[in-house]
Amino acid sequence: MIFLLKLVPFLLISPAFSKYTPDWNSLDNRPLPSWYDYSKFGIFCHWGVYSVPAYRSEWMWWYWKGSKPDAEVVNFIDKNYKPGTTYADFAKDFTAEYFNPQEFVQTVNSSGARYFVFTSKHHEGFTMWPSRTSWNWNSQDIGPKRDIVGELKTAFKATNIHFGLYFSQFEWFNPLFLDDGKYNTTFYPEQVSYPQMIEIVTKYRPDVVWSDGEWDKSDDYWRAKDFLAWLYNSSPVKDQVVVNDRWGAGTMGKHGGFMTYSDHYDPGTLLNRKWENCMTLDKYSWGNRRAMRAADVHTAFEVIEQLARSISCNGNLLLNIGPDMHGRIPSIFEDRLIEIGEFVNSHSEAIFETKPWIHQNDSSGANIWYTSRYRSGIKTDINPSHNHVYNAQLYQETIIYAWILDTKIDQTVLKSVTATDKTKVAIIGTDIVLTGFEKGTSLIVDKQKIDWQKVVRRDVIILKIEYAATEVRNPLEYLDKKQRIEENTYFL
Amino acid sequence: MIFLLKLVPFLLISPAFSKYTPDWNSLDNRPLPSWYDYSKFGIFCHWGVYSVPAYRSEWMWWYWKGSKPDAEVVNFIDKNYKPGTTYADFAKDFTAEYFNPQEFVQTVNSSGARYFVFTSKHHEGFTMWPSRTSWNWNSQDIGPKRDIVGELKTAFKATNIHFGLYFSQFEWFNPLFLDDGKYNTTFYPEQVSYPQMIEIVTKYRPDVVWSDGEWDKSDDYWRAKDFLAWLYNSSPVKDQVVVNDRWGAGTMGKHGGFMTYSDHYDPGTLLNRKWENCMTLDKYSWGNRRAMRAADVHTAFEVIEQLARSISCNGNLLLNIGPDMHGRIPSIFEDRLIEIGEFVNSHSEAIFETKPWIHQNDSSGANIWYTSRYRSGIKTDINPSHNHVYNAQLYQETIIYAWILDTKIDQTVLKSVTATDKTKVAIIGTDIVLTGFEKGTSLIVDKQKIDWQKVVRRDVIILKIEYAATEVRNPLEYLDKKQRIEENTYFL
Amino acid sequence: MIFLLKLVPFLLISPAFSKYTPDWNSLDNRPLPSWYDYSKFGIFCHWGVYSVPAYRSEWMWWYWKGSKPDAEVVNFIDKNYKPGTTYADFAKDFTAEYFNPQEFVQTVNSSGARYFVFTSKHHEGFTMWPSRTSWNWNSQDIGPKRDIVGELKTAFKATNIHFGLYFSQFEWFNPLFLDDGKYNTTFYPEQVSYPQMIEIVTKYRPDVVWSDGEWDKSDDYWRAKDFLAWLYNSSPVKDQVVVNDRWGAGTMGKHGGFMTYSDHYDPGTLLNRKWENCMTLDKYSWGNRRAMRAADVHTAFEVIEQLARSISCNGNLLLNIGPDMHGRIPSIFEDRLIEIGEFVNSHSEAIFETKPWIHQNDSSGANIWYTSRYRSGIKTDINPSHNHVYNAQLYQETIIYAWILDTKIDQTVLKSVTATDKTKVAIIGTDIVLTGFEKGTSLIVDKQKIDWQKVVRRDVIILKIEYAATEVRNPLEYLDKKQRIEENTYFL
Amino acid sequence: MIFLLKLVPFLLISPAFSKYTPDWNSLDNRPLPSWYDYSKFGIFCHWGVYSVPAYRSEWMWWYWKGSKPDAEVVNFIDKNYKPGTTYADFAKDFTAEYFNPQEFVQTVNSSGARYFVFTSKHHEGFTMWPSRTSWNWNSQDIGPKRDIVGELKTAFKATNIHFGLYFSQFEWFNPLFLDDGKYNTTFYPEQVSYPQMIEIVTKYRPDVVWSDGEWDKSDDYWRAKDFLAWLYNSSPVKDQVVVNDRWGAGTMGKHGGFMTYSDHYDPGTLLNRKWENCMTLDKYSWGNRRAMRAADVHTAFEVIEQLARSISCNGNLLLNIGPDMHGRIPSIFEDRLIEIGEFVNSHSEAIFETKPWIHQNDSSGANIWYTSRYRSGIKTDINPSHNHVYNAQLYQETIIYAWILDTKIDQTVLKSVTATDKTKVAIIGTDIVLTGFEKGTSLIVDKQKIDWQKVVRRDVIILKIEYAATEVRNPLEYLDKKQRIEENTYFL
Repeated sequence: MIFLLKLVPFLLISPAFSKYTPDWNSLDNRPLPSWYDYSKFGIFCHWGVYSVPAYRSEWMWWYWKGSKPDAEVVNFIDKNYKPGTTYADFAKDFTAEYFNPQEFVQTVNSSGARYFVFTSKHHEGFTMWPSRTSWNWNSQDIGPKRDIVGELKTAFKATNIHFGLYFSQFEWFNPLFLDDGKYNTTFYPEQVSYPQMIEIVTKYRPDVVWSDGEWDKSDDYWRAKDFLAWLYNSSPVKDQVVVNDRWGAGTMGKHGGFMTYSDHYDPGTLLNRKWENCMTLDKYSWGNRRAMRAADVHTAFEVIEQLARSISCNGNLLLNIGPDMHGRIPSIFEDRLIEIGEFVNSHSEAIFETKPWIHQNDSSGANIWYTSRYRSGIKTDINPSHNHVYNAQLYQETIIYAWILDTKIDQTVLKSVTATDKTKVAIIGTDIVLTGFEKGTSLIVDKQKIDWQKVVRRDVIILKIEYAATEVRNPLEYLDKKQRIEENTYFL
Repeated sequence: MIFLLKLVPFLLISPAFSKYTPDWNSLDNRPLPSWYDYSKFGIFCHWGVYSVPAYRSEWMWWYWKGSKPDAEVVNFIDKNYKPGTTYADFAKDFTAEYFNPQEFVQTVNSSGARYFVFTSKHHEGFTMWPSRTSWNWNSQDIGPKRDIVGELKTAFKATNIHFGLYFSQFEWFNPLFLDDGKYNTTFYPEQVSYPQMIEIVTKYRPDVVWSDGEWDKSDDYWRAKDFLAWLYNSSPVKDQVVVNDRWGAGTMGKHGGFMTYSDHYDPGTLLNRKWENCMTLDKYSWGNRRAMRAADVHTAFEVIEQLARSISCNGNLLLNIGPDMHGRIPSIFEDRLIEIGEFVNSHSEAIFETKPWIHQNDSSGANIWYTSRYRSGIKTDINPSHNHVYNAQLYQETIIYAWILDTKIDQTVLKSVTATDKTKVAIIGTDIVLTGFEKGTSLIVDKQKIDWQKVVRRDVIILKIEYAATEVRNPLEYLDKKQRIEENTYFL
Repeated sequence: MIFLLKLVPFLLISPAFSKYTPDWNSLDNRPLPSWYDYSKFGIFCHWGVYSVPAYRSEWMWWYWKGSKPDAEVVNFIDKNYKPGTTYADFAKDFTAEYFNPQEFVQTVNSSGARYFVFTSKHHEGFTMWPSRTSWNWNSQDIGPKRDIVGELKTAFKATNIHFGLYFSQFEWFNPLFLDDGKYNTTFYPEQVSYPQMIEIVTKYRPDVVWSDGEWDKSDDYWRAKDFLAWLYNSSPVKDQVVVNDRWGAGTMGKHGGFMTYSDHYDPGTLLNRKWENCMTLDKYSWGNRRAMRAADVHTAFEVIEQLARSISCNGNLLLNIGPDMHGRIPSIFEDRLIEIGEFVNSHSEAIFETKPWIHQNDSSGANIWYTSRYRSGIKTDINPSHNHVYNAQLYQETIIYAWILDTKIDQTVLKSVTATDKTKVAIIGTDIVLTGFEKGTSLIVDKQKIDWQKVVRRDVIILKIEYAATEVRNPLEYLDKKQRIEENTYFL
Repeated sequence: MIFLLKLVPFLLISPAFSKYTPDWNSLDNRPLPSWYDYSKFGIFCHWGVYSVPAYRSEWMWWYWKGSKPDAEVVNFIDKNYKPGTTYADFAKDFTAEYFNPQEFVQTVNSSGARYFVFTSKHHEGFTMWPSRTSWNWNSQDIGPKRDIVGELKTAFKATNIHFGLYFSQFEWFNPLFLDDGKYNTTFYPEQVSYPQMIEIVTKYRPDVVWSDGEWDKSDDYWRAKDFLAWLYNSSPVKDQVVVNDRWGAGTMGKHGGFMTYSDHYDPGTLLNRKWENCMTLDKYSWGNRRAMRAADVHTAFEVIEQLARSISCNGNLLLNIGPDMHGRIPSIFEDRLIEIGEFVNSHSEAIFETKPWIHQNDSSGANIWYTSRYRSGIKTDINPSHNHVYNAQLYQETIIYAWILDTKIDQTVLKSVTATDKTKVAIIGTDIVLTGFEKGTSLIVDKQKIDWQKVVRRDVIILKIEYAATEVRNPLEYLDKKQRIEENTYFL
């Protein structure tokens, strides 16, 4: 790796080896590896020293010691810790004695997710691997005394789940970073963050590099374009890796691989470019929070609804969990993941390797969302849509998946689906098949025709609709003009 | 209290003041205060220093240092703690900083339970109140630095939930107790356990005294009969207090108030004497267990099933939860309690203040259990049963509640219920009313007649059955002869 | 032991077995075993949980939480410990990992002392042995995880040093003790302190029982006379044990074995009854004190001076050291003990098995103190003094030891010693012999006649004076009248 | 400082500003600021995280985890710490709550020393100031939570004691350093050690930079010559700073300021170049050692002897003390420093601002050592010696100080001093003056002529000898040829 570090500058300027050059025009032209779009649902995991105080959120240190300390956080520490306690003191209690990577992977797997993203380092700067540039402030030297990233990587290898790494560019209180701000220098990225990115890619070969903490500095400061050019041209993961869009002030929603825009992003309309909705099971924190109560945890239904809203609009859903300082995923999270996984696994055909449809949300405005697939597989030639962002509605070819998220009403009218006399509707997860729809009208499903003891869940069902009428529609046209122009800039 | 302590001996031998004498004949004659039978469902809570290692169960100390140490427990400690660690070392980390009695009570209340029993002291000997006979080994002197029992008592006062206290007679490793065993002395009960019982009753006025850890010694050793005579005659809770049956070797299932027989007691048949099924949400431990996974936690359905099986047979259900060392009830427990509470609260008429019926389990053997009430209230004169253990089936008077625990079959036949032409069946929690049953035959309910989107849960419904045919039957007769003889000895 | 406990009451009232009855008349008549008087110099050791905060002194808990908290102590704890810290929290850090009984004994031995007294329990109530009445608040259950008293006892067995135990009757914050005060009961001595005294004597067979913490209650409350009668009549140490005079309010200086009067007692005149001066190397604390500076430690000279002042007046010197929480005797203490031991060992003939002389302090008032012995041994028949408290001055028989504590003056005049023409003066530790004194006059020693490179110390020398003139004098006559009357009450 | 960092390269290559160039020829030509030679006696202080385990020595980490772990150290940790404990864990307990810089300075001052050198960082890498390149591994972020170097600097400003800083070039386990070794890179000095040297000089302006831990790498690797050129040319301490000779493999004893050769260096002969003997009060460790016993501590006499041997041969003595983890200097060290200070302060004229004499050790071979001064002050013109390393013996001008370290013999013959009839000998610290020596013979002093009660110590006296016969001798000639050649290379 050291060898690589020394070669990197040469590699980057060597045009003979390089497909991509370190500028956004070139980097944004790289096609997103398809596994990411096909995977739809991932599990995110925030774990670090913040799981020791486990107070408020993973931003606890900032609330405590940042520019505007939060009185509640300050009081909590004052009341419960020895005077003069520092954040570094917490590391010793980050014991992780219950962390079992196999069990951890099994829990993630129970959710049905197809990829996993782990915080290799959050804004606290504590690296969850033995980083050479974060001596005595990493999970091997203190706390767990283990290479957490490495153990997870190894454990995930035994599964089909793609392994990714989150990485915070900045560190709130790293004096090198703070001094760079004061003196307009670049010691911090040169000596800390850039080498660390090379380190995690070289050592752990992640399929996702999920950058964060970038907003305060330019992509030049972070050497982001250099990194991505290396990542795409020469790194050991150059063919399969995907990255997000957080690479420096102004890049979010503009440059990189998939777009995140913001945390909890949920546009409700189709976006031209692949995006991701990252949300967290605990409504109030990404990191473990000891005070979390049952009502603070999203229900499985809420997560399923987010999944529907995301993948119908060309997004993925990345659902976060925060283990505790002992290395345990809270049982209520495990409980939810199992419940979500029961739904996901029994409805996988409506989820994985699907595409958005010509409608995302039913045009009636009801809580109904659509995904789709072609009967004959994913074919570019029959796809009229830009970049194959969505599947067209072709009578013979298109299978529509309608996610009915309000199941208590007597009649569900799918205004966006026009029946033919061959239209056939199955309820996924059951043997129920509905036919005999009135040709040329909207599809109508009667609640009474369904045996609710047979469905996987009473609160959400997915209809598999075949042989609905052909319809020509470009859902991207419905975007407001301004957004279209912006989006066009990504591709044209 | 000290004053009382000195008077107690005199009070006990003073016949003028005493309704009950310190012998089982007299003590067993005391009627069980009715609030207990009417309450049906309670929450049990095991909390102590064992929540710090939170390994295996609340018996961890015994597995570690008892007569036959368990290798797995020994290894866990050896691996994760400093050499030479003792159990007393754990107390310092029992911080309970998140313990909020109001929030705690609110969580208990969310379950719909009507009583609560808290471990004032478990076999470890650590008192959760500042006991004068357990100096520096109680929750005020070390660990929480709080009078946990006192704070809970105060918080429960604001509710309708009865407050009770569990109390372990013996202490595994108390040298006074161990020496009593060696030298046939009684220092331990005289100096520790007996004064503690007086202390908790006098100071916290519990409605339940739930004795345990009694099995190795006689009721004489524990001074149990003296205590109960004082409790029933003179204590500040003499009118409302109930006690269980663990008062010395050989008393369990024989003497005291309600019978517990064993942990997780679930006879499946009607018992003459009021009993209690104590079970725990975590299948494997009463105390907090850090390694608890979602699959280790009973589902709400399983708890509801236990509730049905218990109250239909003259039992109560006492459901245990174990808070962690920080004072948090695990969120998955809270989640379950809320889910159970939704069912209990919407079906309260089938639960509280009901009586067993002439059948407990449907005679078909299906998973159907019965409770009942009289339309005109609880009347002794119309009750032919011994001690009013069950309600008779009287056409005009008796309302039957049939708990259907298998809801997926197409036809549910209630062989134990004979329809009349006036028989009326309502599904509790809905507006569904079923009529038109065939007179003189068993009641039959068709799955298709139920709108499963309307019921509270798909997996259990309760039918409220009115005007079923009168039937004469003494369910106690069906006990096998041996058991009847035994049970008779309790009452005759 | 338990067996003994049960027999004790019977033994005590059985006149056939008993030499002493439980009243002071009888108990005070017991002769003090001679080993104690002959031993002259002992080492005292205060060690307990107070060595963890090691702040201020072994009374730290009282200063912190007693009736009038000391602001400085409160502030120290507030500044350096977690909010809510209790004294019980300290026990966990009382690790004693460096405690090595053999090394400890060797250090004590280096001082030349002939007896050793250890705090089996101080006012904090923490027992340094696994007391059955102080569960989880003793050195076996928490902290050292060792039977400190037992290990010391065993280690001292290999030496000629007598082993003794200090024992605090009261415990500042034991609720049983506090409640006894409120309710005029006796639970605490019955259940805690009296059984503990029996325990330590039976288990560790100390040659000294050094009672303390007695002042607030009567000897009846402590059952002191019962204890002493048992100790003298039946205990395993009945023949050799000595006790002090702290057995209940009003006993100090009146009843018991040797008299302590007060800490640091230093009368400067001969007392009729054997007494002890307990002092401590650290001028400001008996227990370990982390802030102790070099200037806070008595010099070897100061200790030697105290030794001279004490044994010349019929006292012993008991010099205290306080080990730290790791089990180390501070090196400066060890340094002092070695320096003192060099003097004591090279001047042992002037110390051990000596008696006071007819003068204690030279009648000139100079800093010169006398001890003595008979050439022919200790003979009662030639001893005119009461109880052989002092040796008479007999020309042929008496050897005088003059401790010269001011060595810088040119001429030292010993006004109390009258020379004969045979008077011979040797300087102990050297080969210097001075003769040729003027008969009938006071002995005069010229500084210039001494080679100061030959003496053990420049600041103190001991002259061994033989064949001084006979003199008749009863030093006890010189006591003021009031004191003599008081002292007479001890013996008459 | 950042500004400086960026300018440094330019400054170094800017000949216009630079008196010294970064090569040894130039750097070695800088005259040693005279304050250092005049100061003679300094106190060294080793303090770091190693004071927490305080086991074996400050090298504990290396013995524990280095290439050949020491079984005894490994066993100690295994026995006394939680399994998996790392060195980083110790930092939390490095509380230093008793560290009081004023008191610390006062203790140093009591020794009479004129300079002080403090370990700003030892081989463990933990910086005792908040270094920007050692985040979360410094005394501000964890442990003391204080800028120890800064507080000491401020406190010493109020005294006449020169303040210096020790600095370890390498860090045993810093991954950047280890990787440099593997890959032949220079990340560690560029990013860690070189910036840190700039940091401590700029921030704390030390009068001594005492480099160490240099042996494994070249002076180029450490950028030592760059640093020294900057230090001598441009740093804020360029005029007064002195440095030692540990700047890279092969520099020790050759290049830099004063020579240290090795720890505990004590040649016994005059060296041409100024050197320093660093020794430690604890015979076995520089860092605090909890197991240190009294016999492990050098006596004041031994230190005084080392002082004599050092300054008579052109060396200084740097005496080390190691505070404990609470911030306390062990009282036995304080005791020794006070005792040494009593001697130093009463004999200051024989120590400070003196020069070696024409003889170092008396030519008789007895334990007698010489220092000297000129009556008329330090004059270069009358000094025939090379660099004024020693004072010539001039009858009128030279005052000789003879340190007599063996005081018990009857006659002390000073073979190296030839008496004249005017020769006058005074014993420093007394009013004793000896005259009447036999002209032309060696000076003889009779033990009996000294009043040993008047001298400061019995075991060492210093004779001040005036008007001894002139003698021509170059003590450097007496060096063996090989050494002279080596030494010449320093200067010629």
